[in-house]
Amino acid sequence: MNFDIKTPQKELIEQLQHKIDFKTKPIGSLGMLEQLAVKIGCIQNTLSPELNKPVIMVFAGDHGIALDGVSPYPQEVTWQMVANFMAGGAAINVFGRQNGIDIQIVDAGVNYDFDKDWNVIDAKIAHGTQSYLNGPAMNKEQFTKALAKGAELVQKAHKNGTNIIGFGEMGIANTSSAAVLLHLLAKVDLKECVGRGTGWDDEGLKRKYEILKSAVENYKGDDSVEDIFTHFGGFEIVMIAGAMLKAAELKMTIMVDGFIITSALLAASKMNANILEYCIFTHKSNENGHKHMLEHLQANAILDLGMRLGEGTGAAVAYPIIESAVNFLNQMASFEDAGVSNSDQIVSE
Amino acid sequence: MNFDIKTPQKELIEQLQHKIDFKTKPIGSLGMLEQLAVKIGCIQNTLSPELNKPVIMVFAGDHGIALDGVSPYPQEVTWQMVANFMAGGAAINVFGRQNGIDIQIVDAGVNYDFDKDWNVIDAKIAHGTQSYLNGPAMNKEQFTKALAKGAELVQKAHKNGTNIIGFGEMGIANTSSAAVLLHLLAKVDLKECVGRGTGWDDEGLKRKYEILKSAVENYKGDDSVEDIFTHFGGFEIVMIAGAMLKAAELKMTIMVDGFIITSALLAASKMNANILEYCIFTHKSNENGHKHMLEHLQANAILDLGMRLGEGTGAAVAYPIIESAVNFLNQMASFEDAGVSNSDQIVSE
Repeated sequence: MNFDIKTPQKELIEQLQHKIDFKTKPIGSLGMLEQLAVKIGCIQNTLSPELNKPVIMVFAGDHGIALDGVSPYPQEVTWQMVANFMAGGAAINVFGRQNGIDIQIVDAGVNYDFDKDWNVIDAKIAHGTQSYLNGPAMNKEQFTKALAKGAELVQKAHKNGTNIIGFGEMGIANTSSAAVLLHLLAKVDLKECVGRGTGWDDEGLKRKYEILKSAVENYKGDDSVEDIFTHFGGFEIVMIAGAMLKAAELKMTIMVDGFIITSALLAASKMNANILEYCIFTHKSNENGHKHMLEHLQANAILDLGMRLGEGTGAAVAYPIIESAVNFLNQMASFEDAGVSNSDQIVSE
Repeated sequence: MNFDIKTPQKELIEQLQHKIDFKTKPIGSLGMLEQLAVKIGCIQNTLSPELNKPVIMVFAGDHGIALDGVSPYPQEVTWQMVANFMAGGAAINVFGRQNGIDIQIVDAGVNYDFDKDWNVIDAKIAHGTQSYLNGPAMNKEQFTKALAKGAELVQKAHKNGTNIIGFGEMGIANTSSAAVLLHLLAKVDLKECVGRGTGWDDEGLKRKYEILKSAVENYKGDDSVEDIFTHFGGFEIVMIAGAMLKAAELKMTIMVDGFIITSALLAASKMNANILEYCIFTHKSNENGHKHMLEHLQANAILDLGMRLGEGTGAAVAYPIIESAVNFLNQMASFEDAGVSNSDQIVSE
């Protein structure tokens, strides 16, 4: 599956920076907000970008590897949390309501049949992946279908007027997939990639590492991105990668959340590196591997609050800061507008 | 002037943490949001805190030392920026509008007579301070009056229903006051305290340092907090300290902004250390001295976006994150509410 991702208009960078530098403030004094404003202006190819109908799509999926003991939580927590999302009681619901973000819940492959009345978006590939301890998590057909399904859902949001989108996830054991993807795609030592996830103690962490070490040793594929992703991915992670690739193709701004979501981006970026031009990194997760992902992608995150909850909560909490970046660019007066004396020293910098 | 600041109810900490730990999320996974929720709950003495009618009061004042060449901007920028605030074109206006924060502009001692029709809040102590190069910036009467005026304005906001308040400032040369206050009150090497402010080059920075070094050498006071503050303060900085002390007395949550505002808090905390229990540090300024202030106060800031604009912009941008902390505490479902299986391992931690 191919995505045609254009490089954003770099010619605008200078014009955007010029507009910013004549705002009534010292040069550079809005720090990262200035970088965000330039980035979004370039993505939208305008000096006056807008954020329209923000969406966070939360993809849920189950993982065969969970049954091998990589998580302290039982697998049924995945569907129970989907129920919690639909009832509006989860963290992502709270932050979405607060910040005017539409939260869409997608069943990418949960091991449970949801009642139709719940209105979970149905994109189920299967009732969870296979364990990748001794074989692939999914087959090639499932992989392609998951990518396409993610793309289709983003296309729909785009048609509805959304131009900024974030992604969240729910899937017991999905930090394991993310850890292995980081290990194999970014060549980071596995020990550094495997973290406590939802809350392992030392012993649990060791067991998780041993299981994943065996899984990696048992992998005999061709080491291509697609093969690694098919073997170790989760349905929700692959679907998110497809969704992100389509979002970039459609020139949408992508809000990247924490460890799992960045693992999807890591894989997507190996399929098409241009995607990174459309990404804003919203928070640095407290899960150890995330710092390696950010380093590998040369990314700075907006927030570093020690969060590690998933669901897209980092993106939801950071969204008002992205709004602040766009708002100052559009609404602040220039020195000339406001009749404020400028400093020659500063203007000439 | 004395402020009766009570220590918040610490007995509630355990109950608040218990409430948080039974929310549908892994233990500790909301990081700093959890700490903020506990802090605000304790301040308000409730398990269900609320943020009501947030205000940021921006105090403007002029500084005699500006005429000695410590800033690249001319002094009239202070009043011109006040005009910009009143016209709604400054960064603080943009972020206040975005986040539903009432921005109140106070003339603490600007060297300009504002037209009454502009509706700037009049708390003018004088038309700017004296230069503290060879003598005190203000006299004792002015100092006491500034503290009292700040307290009075906060009392008024409190009466109007505000329970969370931030402070901003505008005053050409006020990073110089802040630098000297940091040096003398926290015993930090002056070189580390003096920064580029609104944008000095190396030469300007050196000149600023030399001027402040002379000013400190010329100081022959009694080294009490009040004397140092009277000698090196600005009207806006002293007024903010009085405002903060009153806010803590009234059990309001205080949003602490960057370098200048933290210098006011530093002085206020030496007058009454209990004030720190009411403070949330909203952002880490890019002005070098601020990191020393935060270290001295053992404070962690919510944001680190490389901002150094002043006006209270750090507090205004961070406010939605404080809202997120209160909202998750009040609105998230517990495991029991949501019928989600918990992990014994995690609950027993």
